[in-house]
Amino acid sequence: MIKKIERYPAMADRQLQPRYTGIPTFFRLPYAEVLEDIDIGLIGVPFDGGVTHRTGTRHGPREMRNQSSLIRKHNPASGISPFELVRCADLGDAWVEKPYELEGAHQEIGAFFQDVCAAGIMPLSIGGDHSISLPILRAVAKDGPVGMVHIDAHCDTGDDYLGSRFHHGAPFRRAVEEGLLDPKRVIQIGIRGSLNVPDMWDFSYDTGMRVVEIEEFTDKGWAWAAEEARRIVGDGPTYFSFDIDSLDPSQAPGTGTPEMGGITVREAQRLIRALAGVDFVGGDLVEVSPPWDIGGLTTMSGVTILFEMLCVLAQAKDARQA
Amino acid sequence: MIKKIERYPAMADRQLQPRYTGIPTFFRLPYAEVLEDIDIGLIGVPFDGGVTHRTGTRHGPREMRNQSSLIRKHNPASGISPFELVRCADLGDAWVEKPYELEGAHQEIGAFFQDVCAAGIMPLSIGGDHSISLPILRAVAKDGPVGMVHIDAHCDTGDDYLGSRFHHGAPFRRAVEEGLLDPKRVIQIGIRGSLNVPDMWDFSYDTGMRVVEIEEFTDKGWAWAAEEARRIVGDGPTYFSFDIDSLDPSQAPGTGTPEMGGITVREAQRLIRALAGVDFVGGDLVEVSPPWDIGGLTTMSGVTILFEMLCVLAQAKDARQA
Amino acid sequence: MIKKIERYPAMADRQLQPRYTGIPTFFRLPYAEVLEDIDIGLIGVPFDGGVTHRTGTRHGPREMRNQSSLIRKHNPASGISPFELVRCADLGDAWVEKPYELEGAHQEIGAFFQDVCAAGIMPLSIGGDHSISLPILRAVAKDGPVGMVHIDAHCDTGDDYLGSRFHHGAPFRRAVEEGLLDPKRVIQIGIRGSLNVPDMWDFSYDTGMRVVEIEEFTDKGWAWAAEEARRIVGDGPTYFSFDIDSLDPSQAPGTGTPEMGGITVREAQRLIRALAGVDFVGGDLVEVSPPWDIGGLTTMSGVTILFEMLCVLAQAKDARQA
Amino acid sequence: MIKKIERYPAMADRQLQPRYTGIPTFFRLPYAEVLEDIDIGLIGVPFDGGVTHRTGTRHGPREMRNQSSLIRKHNPASGISPFELVRCADLGDAWVEKPYELEGAHQEIGAFFQDVCAAGIMPLSIGGDHSISLPILRAVAKDGPVGMVHIDAHCDTGDDYLGSRFHHGAPFRRAVEEGLLDPKRVIQIGIRGSLNVPDMWDFSYDTGMRVVEIEEFTDKGWAWAAEEARRIVGDGPTYFSFDIDSLDPSQAPGTGTPEMGGITVREAQRLIRALAGVDFVGGDLVEVSPPWDIGGLTTMSGVTILFEMLCVLAQAKDARQA
Amino acid sequence: MIKKIERYPAMADRQLQPRYTGIPTFFRLPYAEVLEDIDIGLIGVPFDGGVTHRTGTRHGPREMRNQSSLIRKHNPASGISPFELVRCADLGDAWVEKPYELEGAHQEIGAFFQDVCAAGIMPLSIGGDHSISLPILRAVAKDGPVGMVHIDAHCDTGDDYLGSRFHHGAPFRRAVEEGLLDPKRVIQIGIRGSLNVPDMWDFSYDTGMRVVEIEEFTDKGWAWAAEEARRIVGDGPTYFSFDIDSLDPSQAPGTGTPEMGGITVREAQRLIRALAGVDFVGGDLVEVSPPWDIGGLTTMSGVTILFEMLCVLAQAKDARQA
Amino acid sequence: MIKKIERYPAMADRQLQPRYTGIPTFFRLPYAEVLEDIDIGLIGVPFDGGVTHRTGTRHGPREMRNQSSLIRKHNPASGISPFELVRCADLGDAWVEKPYELEGAHQEIGAFFQDVCAAGIMPLSIGGDHSISLPILRAVAKDGPVGMVHIDAHCDTGDDYLGSRFHHGAPFRRAVEEGLLDPKRVIQIGIRGSLNVPDMWDFSYDTGMRVVEIEEFTDKGWAWAAEEARRIVGDGPTYFSFDIDSLDPSQAPGTGTPEMGGITVREAQRLIRALAGVDFVGGDLVEVSPPWDIGGLTTMSGVTILFEMLCVLAQAKDARQA
Repeated sequence: MIKKIERYPAMADRQLQPRYTGIPTFFRLPYAEVLEDIDIGLIGVPFDGGVTHRTGTRHGPREMRNQSSLIRKHNPASGISPFELVRCADLGDAWVEKPYELEGAHQEIGAFFQDVCAAGIMPLSIGGDHSISLPILRAVAKDGPVGMVHIDAHCDTGDDYLGSRFHHGAPFRRAVEEGLLDPKRVIQIGIRGSLNVPDMWDFSYDTGMRVVEIEEFTDKGWAWAAEEARRIVGDGPTYFSFDIDSLDPSQAPGTGTPEMGGITVREAQRLIRALAGVDFVGGDLVEVSPPWDIGGLTTMSGVTILFEMLCVLAQAKDARQA
Repeated sequence: MIKKIERYPAMADRQLQPRYTGIPTFFRLPYAEVLEDIDIGLIGVPFDGGVTHRTGTRHGPREMRNQSSLIRKHNPASGISPFELVRCADLGDAWVEKPYELEGAHQEIGAFFQDVCAAGIMPLSIGGDHSISLPILRAVAKDGPVGMVHIDAHCDTGDDYLGSRFHHGAPFRRAVEEGLLDPKRVIQIGIRGSLNVPDMWDFSYDTGMRVVEIEEFTDKGWAWAAEEARRIVGDGPTYFSFDIDSLDPSQAPGTGTPEMGGITVREAQRLIRALAGVDFVGGDLVEVSPPWDIGGLTTMSGVTILFEMLCVLAQAKDARQA
Repeated sequence: MIKKIERYPAMADRQLQPRYTGIPTFFRLPYAEVLEDIDIGLIGVPFDGGVTHRTGTRHGPREMRNQSSLIRKHNPASGISPFELVRCADLGDAWVEKPYELEGAHQEIGAFFQDVCAAGIMPLSIGGDHSISLPILRAVAKDGPVGMVHIDAHCDTGDDYLGSRFHHGAPFRRAVEEGLLDPKRVIQIGIRGSLNVPDMWDFSYDTGMRVVEIEEFTDKGWAWAAEEARRIVGDGPTYFSFDIDSLDPSQAPGTGTPEMGGITVREAQRLIRALAGVDFVGGDLVEVSPPWDIGGLTTMSGVTILFEMLCVLAQAKDARQA
Repeated sequence: MIKKIERYPAMADRQLQPRYTGIPTFFRLPYAEVLEDIDIGLIGVPFDGGVTHRTGTRHGPREMRNQSSLIRKHNPASGISPFELVRCADLGDAWVEKPYELEGAHQEIGAFFQDVCAAGIMPLSIGGDHSISLPILRAVAKDGPVGMVHIDAHCDTGDDYLGSRFHHGAPFRRAVEEGLLDPKRVIQIGIRGSLNVPDMWDFSYDTGMRVVEIEEFTDKGWAWAAEEARRIVGDGPTYFSFDIDSLDPSQAPGTGTPEMGGITVREAQRLIRALAGVDFVGGDLVEVSPPWDIGGLTTMSGVTILFEMLCVLAQAKDARQA
Repeated sequence: MIKKIERYPAMADRQLQPRYTGIPTFFRLPYAEVLEDIDIGLIGVPFDGGVTHRTGTRHGPREMRNQSSLIRKHNPASGISPFELVRCADLGDAWVEKPYELEGAHQEIGAFFQDVCAAGIMPLSIGGDHSISLPILRAVAKDGPVGMVHIDAHCDTGDDYLGSRFHHGAPFRRAVEEGLLDPKRVIQIGIRGSLNVPDMWDFSYDTGMRVVEIEEFTDKGWAWAAEEARRIVGDGPTYFSFDIDSLDPSQAPGTGTPEMGGITVREAQRLIRALAGVDFVGGDLVEVSPPWDIGGLTTMSGVTILFEMLCVLAQAKDARQA
Repeated sequence: MIKKIERYPAMADRQLQPRYTGIPTFFRLPYAEVLEDIDIGLIGVPFDGGVTHRTGTRHGPREMRNQSSLIRKHNPASGISPFELVRCADLGDAWVEKPYELEGAHQEIGAFFQDVCAAGIMPLSIGGDHSISLPILRAVAKDGPVGMVHIDAHCDTGDDYLGSRFHHGAPFRRAVEEGLLDPKRVIQIGIRGSLNVPDMWDFSYDTGMRVVEIEEFTDKGWAWAAEEARRIVGDGPTYFSFDIDSLDPSQAPGTGTPEMGGITVREAQRLIRALAGVDFVGGDLVEVSPPWDIGGLTTMSGVTILFEMLCVLAQAKDARQA
């Protein structure tokens, strides 16, 4: 005789249970192994083979799942209940079978996301280092270049480093070269930090990306930045990449290349909410590195940002389906 | 022959001794077991039986005492020397003998505060979880409903949860129901965070409390918020409840239900100072949870806020006695 | 069209994947909601309403799941591959809906374990504070008193404290009183630490439990202790309760009532292995308190011990089924 | 009307209250400002002006008081209830008014202990760095040289360093030179660690102290070491100095000059208990440095050792008074 | 045959190597033992004999060197490449041979800086506690009083404390008294925190220093503050002293006398950049205390600020040499 | 005029300076860029491209240098002063220019060590993950297979994993296959931990290596183990590889694949000393992973072990040169 444990009527909604209970999926969503009846898929990408300094983001998805039960169901600031608006699921990890080979690993990641996109699912990925945006974009932008809202301390449009073309400081140079990004429809917000050479990010400027350094962001504010972002990306399909190191290390110490003097979570939340209406086709939150975290601050900031991202992605997905 | 250790003439003033010395009371005040000749009593309430997620605030009073020697005697920003203005003492802990029974514990706490208030002492309590505000209000508002300045990430006017009416997300709903708070004279500042259900804090709105979400606070500033608070509470007797989770977790990580994107200490200090003149009749600082703290940041913020609260409470007490 | 993600042939065996990947269940076992085809069920019990000092064990099951991917499939020291020997599953959490009421919570926990035992599943629980052993024993020893191997710093046979009969220092007094334990078949190993009163554990001695203080354990060694345990519990059904505070705090700092000078993991592992052949009918590992842990040491020790317990439980289960 | 808070009948015995409550004194003893009716006085010495590497032991007494509520009233291993055997009190801190002047500070400390000893109180001090043993010995050994049981990683019989004769690596050379210690009645146990020069501790060997290096201790065991200690110190008055760095850093990381490979708490506890009968006239526990501690391990070991020391000191005091 | 390891052509520029490699000097600069061909010398001053509360800044230089490899070569915000503009070197530590004697130690430090200044090198020092600014100023201002930009939570113009005239709360009172500082050309920015006595910093006000409390700084902003600083110090030679406790403890927890509610790194960076053109003749960054740091946040902020200071010092040095 | 800073006569010997001063090299040895007049070279290998779970050992050499100033010049237990016996130097890091390519990185590392060995220098390497032992052995065993004393929790003779033959669980299988190790002259001590498959280390057993599991080590002791090691390796040239995860995680938590229940430092020190007389030709200490460390315990254990290794290597080098 089969006996299912159905002791808890309240448990029908896992997100109402005490937050220290249960097996952690992203936002306590159902874990899906089958790609159907899903609008937005949250996907861990535990890969950090592309870092240049501190490693550890391979542990990011696991700790982000763990911390994500801090977040509840409704966003009162924007009025959005993403899990009601669209069908969300945790699709597990796009882990790679051959992590020692950087380019091969990227191909494995890319293949995973090809399947996800082919199933009509919008991916929201949790990294992993920033090099993973390239294989994800290969899937998301399969049918032509997309625009991008990119919030980060670094432009990540550098060139070869330590013998590799594909490290975490270069994904968006490669994405432009591969025709995945339309640089004219890319805005990079929060850029700061010392540089190895003055022309380190010239690719961004030369190709026409809109680079908003932290100073301009500070002087003009989040509302202006959101407006500028909407102006740059326009109505076309747009990717959303959020590097946790865009935040100040006092709120996100656990990351590979921290730069003091960053965006605050309070600013980031409002900036993201003000992006409602952009036609997002995917997103990632990257560079959360648990071994360097203190007291869970980075994952706490991470899941807060991830939830705001999910809300605007859900709006976009919902709008397209309407 | 009795020999008293009176080796230190400078020790007459404990607050001038090196801060790593001595047995820690709140602000190195005298510990009083007898309720006389005291205007303001600082009271630990090491109870966390009402939390819904992370426990640990039972350890709050002890670590707040420990850290409080960081604070000195004079507040140059407001010009107040609270220990000269009124007679302050550490009254020890209102600990409970039967901590396993939530409602019984609240009754024990309430009885302690009845004695304190009956002795003409204004209580400034250090929690403990926010559920303790209810029994304290039962003592403070014994003769009629009071107003309240409430700084918090959460309205704490929720309803039953996990089978209890008295958890730390509900004290102010119960206080209104019991006639302890006049909701029209309540302002709640700093509210934010995702919600289980959209109407989670409807009790606040429905009963006429003034809810200032973090977005409005950010847009209008601390000076406006203080003015609004003074407008709402008016001239009547007013309670002051400060939940440490109103602050951003980068400044107060050690708390039970952290919400990123909060008030900064710099804002909170000025907001509190600008409340001078409000007729405060008591206050509490709650939800400091040492096991979740990192590097003492939370208690450091805690004692900083507590000192500012003490200054405006001392002003109120002094004004009433003048 | 349904599309299942079956990209990884190697993924057929989740326990061979990199250990930083995936959604954490205990030992990366399948999560089971239906109680069939299972021999041993690993069950989280995130309840800490019975502690007398430091709280936090409600977070134990989650972090134990997280850390348990450090453990692999085969125990070379004992030659046992528990997941091959018997069918194991993670049954999720026996969380309680009304955590504020200690006795009610125990009843909820008890009901969960009644179902598990009724389905013929041997439970191996992960606490939670030690008070949970009582409701578990109510299910396990439903048909008559069992013996017990109890490894702990404390006898946990105390009497009422702080107005309650059911705190985490008393479960085994209550279990004897309720006829769940045969005290003559109980051995308690590792006992130490200062006492509030000299006769604090007299119930153990008076009822004939075999109490092995840390001094006797040190002088005679783990092999002797295992032999003595086998002698005491004999051939009858036996429960296995392991309190993580039996270990030295240098190896298990994250616990509620630490006592320096404890058993080492090296000793505990060998002691447990030497219990092979005892007719175990269930077990628990309790008092892992993540907020007090440092660097994951406690969960690391915890999963190491849990795996050794699982091995001897699997042997017992297998022997009975043979 | 005077109103004393006498709400808690159970509070008559502070040591039975929950351990997270109250204002921390050593072992929750009464704080005494008057030197009468006291047999053993526990005294903080928050001075670290004599360290050669890492500072921080000035914070030792405060954190030791904080942690000491982990310890209860009765020592079941030795059968001693020290607080019943003799009258104990926390005498507060022997802090110094002029901490920037090493020798002057020592004089201040010495004067404090002169008063204590003159009042017939046996001092048990909590440091502070090891340089404080010298001024304490000047008071304790006022009437002639004493013997010493000294448990430490270092002999602390070095010569001048960095221009000073009185740093924490030299107190016992100075004590012998000043006629405070009889080197023939001194045993030093646990000595280890690399040396700046091979003859660094030759003073110990040359004056006839019994030096037990960690290797000899390991090979022969705690029971032998205790026997040897009793043989060396004989029946005469004996001081007990325990440097927390004698313990292994895995159990006591928070100290100024850690040396891996030390004594375990389990060994130290039994060694101390086996010293029962030695005619102790005072003791100190030094070098606990909270800023370098992790998770309270060092203070946890510290209060465990302090309690064992108190037990044998109480026995000695009681024996002399009998 | 001599064989030099010249395997790495890229290693010609150490600052382009991966940041986790190599032996840490400040900013991976060459270590110089000979005082020639150097414009700016970075100098560690590992001395904390002047602190009044928490010790530990003696460990500052070492950890600042360790963390400084986070910083790269070019400052895009100000367009300065300091290592190209002037010749920089790490001059090692100005450690003192007799650390136990405060005034003697200051003389040793002073003598070191006399040599540096005599060699025409502008010193940029990394403390150590703030008392070291006095001996440094004795060298820098040898030929007459200088002005000062002083960013700090405290004025550090206090009087004797604990029997000493030279602790870390008094250096600038002494510097004025010794004719090293022209108080009319001193600005102190970021002042805040409770005071032992209301007139604690009256020396600053009475001698005409411009004191900018945090409230005025907040209200008027960094741009105004920089303008005010330029107005106060004028064209004359100016010293730059940055106390890390001017920053908020959420960004710089590892310091001896933290005061919540401080300057943010984002503000400090822009304030410093706006000081370009001031005729700086030396600088120090003090009060970084690694044992109290968490996750390297303080050294991360420290090296970020140090780099900005270096940029404006390099501009000044370059301008004078032009 | 050249002006050298020669202020400190005592500084002639850097190892006598206060340990918090200076720029950290291994044991404060001179940093050598030229390979002459050196007997033993200490070499950092900051590479962690071969790990299978937790990364971070690339940060090992830097933190080991930092912590190594805890160690002094003379080993009193063995009577050896290694820096007097042979000429030692810090040769810097064998970092790799192309870290993203595992096999290429190994070639770079190998080439570095070829130069070192060709210069007649015995290398003592500080890792880095264990995969680096293979390229080091290619240099050390260039002229024929060597024996090995290998202390570790794992045999590291596994086969391909995650698509690579050269991860940190396989170096010694490859070394045997490449003719670098004579398996009959290899002893592996401390082996423990669960296994993915029962035959995971069969290569060790099948090729005749002497595998001493932790159980045998515990039962027979360090003295026996040293004797067995000497028997196995005999008189021939022998390599010494020490994986920090052989130690118990309570003493070495910062490592990639921790296994509870390990060797203690006290045992390891004596085991190593008892290897005096073995003809060592090189050694490595690997798997120190600072991001996972707590309170510096792992590097503290690490430098303690490294010093013991250096002593026996110096003896061997000295013996060959005699």
